[in-house]
Amino acid sequence: MQIHVLIAKFKMKKNYGKEAVKLHKKLKGKIEVIFKQDVKNKNDLSLVYTPGVAQVCKEIAKDKRKARNFTLKNNTIAIVSDGSAVLGLGNIGPEAALPVMEGKAMLFKKFGGINAVPLCIKTQNKDEIIEFVKNISPTFGGINLEDISAPRCFEIEKSLQDLGIPVFHDDQHGTAIVVLAALINSLKLANKNMEDIKIVVNGAGAAGIAIVNMLSCVGHNGSKCKSVKDIIVCDSKGIISKERKDLKNNLFKLNLFNITNKNNVSGKLSDAIKNADVFIGVSKGNVFERGINKTMRNNSIIFAMANPDPEIMPEEAYKNGAFIVGTGRSDYLNQINNLLVFPGIFKGAFDSNSKKITNEMKLSAAYAIADSVKNLNKKNILPSPLDVKVHRNVALAVKKASKRGNKNGK
Amino acid sequence: MQIHVLIAKFKMKKNYGKEAVKLHKKLKGKIEVIFKQDVKNKNDLSLVYTPGVAQVCKEIAKDKRKARNFTLKNNTIAIVSDGSAVLGLGNIGPEAALPVMEGKAMLFKKFGGINAVPLCIKTQNKDEIIEFVKNISPTFGGINLEDISAPRCFEIEKSLQDLGIPVFHDDQHGTAIVVLAALINSLKLANKNMEDIKIVVNGAGAAGIAIVNMLSCVGHNGSKCKSVKDIIVCDSKGIISKERKDLKNNLFKLNLFNITNKNNVSGKLSDAIKNADVFIGVSKGNVFERGINKTMRNNSIIFAMANPDPEIMPEEAYKNGAFIVGTGRSDYLNQINNLLVFPGIFKGAFDSNSKKITNEMKLSAAYAIADSVKNLNKKNILPSPLDVKVHRNVALAVKKASKRGNKNGK
Repeated sequence: MQIHVLIAKFKMKKNYGKEAVKLHKKLKGKIEVIFKQDVKNKNDLSLVYTPGVAQVCKEIAKDKRKARNFTLKNNTIAIVSDGSAVLGLGNIGPEAALPVMEGKAMLFKKFGGINAVPLCIKTQNKDEIIEFVKNISPTFGGINLEDISAPRCFEIEKSLQDLGIPVFHDDQHGTAIVVLAALINSLKLANKNMEDIKIVVNGAGAAGIAIVNMLSCVGHNGSKCKSVKDIIVCDSKGIISKERKDLKNNLFKLNLFNITNKNNVSGKLSDAIKNADVFIGVSKGNVFERGINKTMRNNSIIFAMANPDPEIMPEEAYKNGAFIVGTGRSDYLNQINNLLVFPGIFKGAFDSNSKKITNEMKLSAAYAIADSVKNLNKKNILPSPLDVKVHRNVALAVKKASKRGNKNGK
Repeated sequence: MQIHVLIAKFKMKKNYGKEAVKLHKKLKGKIEVIFKQDVKNKNDLSLVYTPGVAQVCKEIAKDKRKARNFTLKNNTIAIVSDGSAVLGLGNIGPEAALPVMEGKAMLFKKFGGINAVPLCIKTQNKDEIIEFVKNISPTFGGINLEDISAPRCFEIEKSLQDLGIPVFHDDQHGTAIVVLAALINSLKLANKNMEDIKIVVNGAGAAGIAIVNMLSCVGHNGSKCKSVKDIIVCDSKGIISKERKDLKNNLFKLNLFNITNKNNVSGKLSDAIKNADVFIGVSKGNVFERGINKTMRNNSIIFAMANPDPEIMPEEAYKNGAFIVGTGRSDYLNQINNLLVFPGIFKGAFDSNSKKITNEMKLSAAYAIADSVKNLNKKNILPSPLDVKVHRNVALAVKKASKRGNKNGK
C-alpha cells in the first residue's frame, strides 16, 4: 500500500500542483466582476447610476424584500471561510484559502449559474463569524460556509438558520448528500437495504457528523428508503461510546449517542469494522491497518474519502474483498465529489425563493444525483459532476422539495 | 428659480426614474461574477480546484503577500456601505443602497478595469464597521467606503489607514479631488491664484471637510499651486466660528478652526459670501436666498453641488453675475462628478502596489483631471467622465505619485 500511496502522490504532484501554480500566476484571479449592460453615454449613466438609480433605491427603501427584484441579491451568494480547515491542509488562514474559494465560485457559476463572491475573513472567533455573516446578509441571497473547522462550524451554521436567506455549510451537508447518493446506488448493486445494514463512519468532524445525521433521517418525509439503524462512529481515539471519558466538552460528539452505537460497543476502528456493510471514511487520513476491511460483510462498500490520501487505496480495498470502492479523488473511478451538490442546491433554493435549506431539500438532492446515473454499475455509482444536466436535475428536485415544504407549512 | 427647480425635477423624473426601475427589474443585478477560464474537463477541474489548487494554497500559506500574485486580491476591491447617507436620500439602509453600489461597481470596471464587489452591511455602529472592514481585508486589494454618514465616516476611514491596503472614502476624497480639478481650471479662466482667493464652503459633512483639507494642502509637495489661505465654512446653522457654542462635541468641525476662518467671522451664509471669489456648495440642499451671489467678487465661481437640487440653479447664478457655474448634475454643463476620480485612483494604487492613498496621490489625480480638458472654456472646465483616456491619465499620475512617495520614504 505504501507504494501505491507514493505513486499516487507523485503522479498527482507532477500532473497538477506545478501546473496549477503556473495557471494561477497567469490568471491572477480565476473570477472577475463584470457589468451586464454597457455604460456608453450620459443616458446609460443616468439609468444605472445617478440620478435614475435613486428611484430604484426608494422602491427598495419602502420594502426591502424588493432587493431581490432589482439587485444582485437575486442570484448572488457569499462563500465565507476563515481558512481554518482548508482541504487537507488545515488552518492555513484566509489569504491561503482564497484559491479554493475562487475555484468554488467558478463552479457555482459554471454548474449553477450563480454569482459567488469569496469572502475569506480574518477572524476565527465563532461569535465574530456569526456577526460577520449577519452583517453581509442584506447584500446576498445565500451564504455558503466553507472550510471552517469543527465544532465551531456546527454552532455557526445553527445560529444563522433564521437569517432569512439559506446558510449552508458545504463541508457538512454537501458531503453528506453526495455520500447518501453514492450509498443509495451502491446498495442497489449490493442488493441491501438501508434499514438492514451496519455502517462505520470514520471521522467525527464536520462531514462525519453531518453524514450520520443524514443517514439517520433518510427515511423521513415520504422518502423512498428507510433510515439506517446501525451506525458506529470512530474518531482518532476509537469508537465513540458512552465509556469514553474524553468527550464531555464536545456536545456534538455526545449527541451522537442518541443516534449511533445502539449496543454501546467500545474499542478501536478495527473492532467497529467487523461485520460492517459500509465503511465511510471522512477522517484527516487515519490510515487503515493492512487488511482491516477483510472482516467486513459480503458485498462490502467502502467510501474512503480522506483528502488527499484515502484511508485505504482502492487497489488494496478491492484486494481485501471490497465490492464497491469510492474515494474523493478525481484520478480513481467512483469519485464522491460534493461538486455534484452545491451548485444545484443553491440554484434550487434561489428558484424557489427558499429562506433555508431543509432536510427535505437535502434528501431530494441526494435522490436526484443517484437517479442521474446512466449505466449504473460497480465502477459507476455516481454521475459526472461535469455534466450540466445533473446539476439541473438537482436544482429542479430541490426546488420541488422546497415548494412541497412550503405547502406543508414548513 | 422655483420654476427652474420644478422643471428640472419634472424632467429628471420623467426621463430617468421610471426607466431606471424598468431596467433594474429586467437586469435583476447590474453586475455578475464570471470565471476567467472555462472548466470543461477533469484536467481543468484538477487545476482550478482540487487537487492542483492545494499547491497554490501552500505557496500563499508560506507568504501571504503572494495572494496578490495568485488570486482576485490582485485587482478586486470591496465597496462597503451601511446605507446611512445614500445620494440625497439619507439613511435608507443597506438593501436600498445596493443599486447605487452596484452602479459604482459597473463604473469601477468600465473605467478602471477593476473588479468591485458591493458589500452593503447591516450594522451602522462605527466600531463594528471598522471590525467588518478589517475582517474582509485578506480578500480584497482595496476598500472603497461609500455613503457612510459623517462624522462616523471620518473616524472609520482614519482607523483603517494602516490596514495594508488602500481604504478610501469616496464621498470625502473623490469629491474633494474633482472639486480641486474644477477649481484649478476655473481659476485659470478667471485669472486668479489659489493663494489670493476667498472661498466659502457650504456644508460641513464628509465632502465639505475633505474639500477644506484638500484646499489647505494643495500647495504641498512641489505642487504647481499654493494652498488656499482664506476659507470660510458654513453648516446649516451658519458660519463655523469660535463664537459657536454648539460644536463642542464635533471634533471634526472644531478642527476646522485651525485651517479656516482666520479672522473668526461669524454670521450667516449671506455674510460669509460677501466678497468671496468661490462658492462650493456640498450641503444637503440649503437653498440660497435669491440674489445672494450678487455680493461675490468679480469673475465669481460657483460649484453648487447639493444633490439632486443645487443650492442655486445655474440660470439664476449666471443672472446674478457668476462667471463660471458647475453642479453635480448631468443635465447641465460643467458637471462636477467624482466618477472622474475613483476608477483612476484605485487603478493607480493597484498599479503601484500602494498600501494607502496619500495626499500626493490625491493631488496628482486632481491635476491629471484638470490637464485632461481639451478646449478649456467657461462651459467646459472638466473632461467627460465617459472618456476612458481621462481615467488612464489619472491612473498613471496616481501611480507616478505613489512611486515618488515610496522613493521619498513616504
